[in-house]
Amino acid sequence: MAEQVRAIRTRQAILSAAARVFDERGYQAATISEILTVAGVTKGALYFHFQSKEDLAQGVLTAQNEDLLLPERPAKLQEVVDAVMLHTHRLRTNPMVRAGVRLSLDVNAGGLDRSAPFRNWVDKFTDLLEKAQAQGELLPHVVPAETADVITGAYGGVQSMSQALTEHQDLGQRVNALLRHLMPSIAQPSVLASLHLGESRAEEVYLEARQLAREQADEED
Amino acid sequence: MAEQVRAIRTRQAILSAAARVFDERGYQAATISEILTVAGVTKGALYFHFQSKEDLAQGVLTAQNEDLLLPERPAKLQEVVDAVMLHTHRLRTNPMVRAGVRLSLDVNAGGLDRSAPFRNWVDKFTDLLEKAQAQGELLPHVVPAETADVITGAYGGVQSMSQALTEHQDLGQRVNALLRHLMPSIAQPSVLASLHLGESRAEEVYLEARQLAREQADEED
Repeated sequence: MAEQVRAIRTRQAILSAAARVFDERGYQAATISEILTVAGVTKGALYFHFQSKEDLAQGVLTAQNEDLLLPERPAKLQEVVDAVMLHTHRLRTNPMVRAGVRLSLDVNAGGLDRSAPFRNWVDKFTDLLEKAQAQGELLPHVVPAETADVITGAYGGVQSMSQALTEHQDLGQRVNALLRHLMPSIAQPSVLASLHLGESRAEEVYLEARQLAREQADEED
Repeated sequence: MAEQVRAIRTRQAILSAAARVFDERGYQAATISEILTVAGVTKGALYFHFQSKEDLAQGVLTAQNEDLLLPERPAKLQEVVDAVMLHTHRLRTNPMVRAGVRLSLDVNAGGLDRSAPFRNWVDKFTDLLEKAQAQGELLPHVVPAETADVITGAYGGVQSMSQALTEHQDLGQRVNALLRHLMPSIAQPSVLASLHLGESRAEEVYLEARQLAREQADEED
C-alpha cells in the first residue's frame, strides 16, 4: 500500500514538472531531461510512468479535467455554466490546468494529438445539454452536440484572447460576456432568468467542488 | 517609380517567406537566416525592410487584415457576418492569413506583442456594431464594444478547434453554428430573419470583395 502511494506521488511529481516545463517552453522546445531535473526523479522512475515526451504531454492534457466533480443542480444548464466557471477559476490558479490548455492550443506541437481535451469538453457538454433537453430547459431547435461544440470552441478562444491581452486577468469578465451572448440562443426564457452567470460564480463553484471532494475523501477513509 | 515597385515586391516576397517559415516552425523556432533562404533575397534587402524577427512577425500579423475591402450592405450586422465569412474563406486559402492567425495564437511566442490582430478585429466589429445600433438593428441591451470582444474571441477559438480537429476542413460549418448561437442575442428579430449566415456565404463574399478590389485597381490606372 505504501509503495502504491509512493508511485502515485512520483507520477504526480513528474506530471507537475512536465506541466511547468511545457508551460514555459511549449511542446516543441521542452525536453525530457529538463523535466527530469525539475521533477528531481531518476530516468528509470520517469520511464516507468511515461514512455515519451508525447506520453507526458497527453498526461498533462488529461489532468486538466481530473480531480474535481461538479456539484449537481436542478437545472442542467446551470451545470453547463458551472463547468465553464470551475474551469475558469482553475485556469487562473492551477498550473496543471493552465499547461493543459496551453498544450491543447499549441499549433506548433507537431506530432501531438491535441484533440482529446476538445472531445472531452464536447462530450461533457453534450451529456449535460441532453439532460437539459429532456427536462425541457432548451429552446426547441437546439442540437446538443452542436451547441456543445460551439461552447467549447468559443470558450477556448475567449480564454486565448484574455491570455494574449491581459494574461487572464480579465477572463472572468470575458466568460460572463460570452455566456450572456450564448445562453439566450439555448435556454427557455424561464430557465434563462434563473441562471447564475455572474463573475463571482467561478470561485463559489470552486469552493463548493473542493468541499465535495473533501467529503468524498472522508467517506473513503 | 520602377524602383518603388521593386521595393514593394521585395517586401512582399520577404513577408510571404516569413509567413511560410512562421507557419511551419512557430515564432520561437523560426530564424531570420531560414526566412532569407526561402525569400531568396540578400541580408541587406531584408534588414532594409525589417529590423528584427519580431518586426517580421508584426508584418505578418498586420498583413492578415490588409488588401480586401468588405462590400457595403444595408444592414451593418450583415457586414459583421460578412467580415467573419471573408476571413473564414481567406484562412483556408491564403497562407499569409493562416500564418497571421497562427502567430496571434502562439502562446510560445515570448516577446512578441500578439495583441494587435485582436484589437484590429475588435475595433472593426465595434465600428460596424455602433453603426448597426444607430440604424436600430440591435437589441436594446447590446454594448457594441463588449459584443465585438465576444465575437472576436469566440471566432478565434472556433477556428483553433477546427484546426486542431480537422485542419480547418469543418471551419465553415463551425462558423455557421457559432453565428447562429450569437446573433439571436444581438439582432432585432426582423434583422435576424434577413441575415445570410449559410456556409456558401464565405466564398460569395470573397468573390465579391475580389471583384471590388479589381474595379478599384482599374480606376486607379
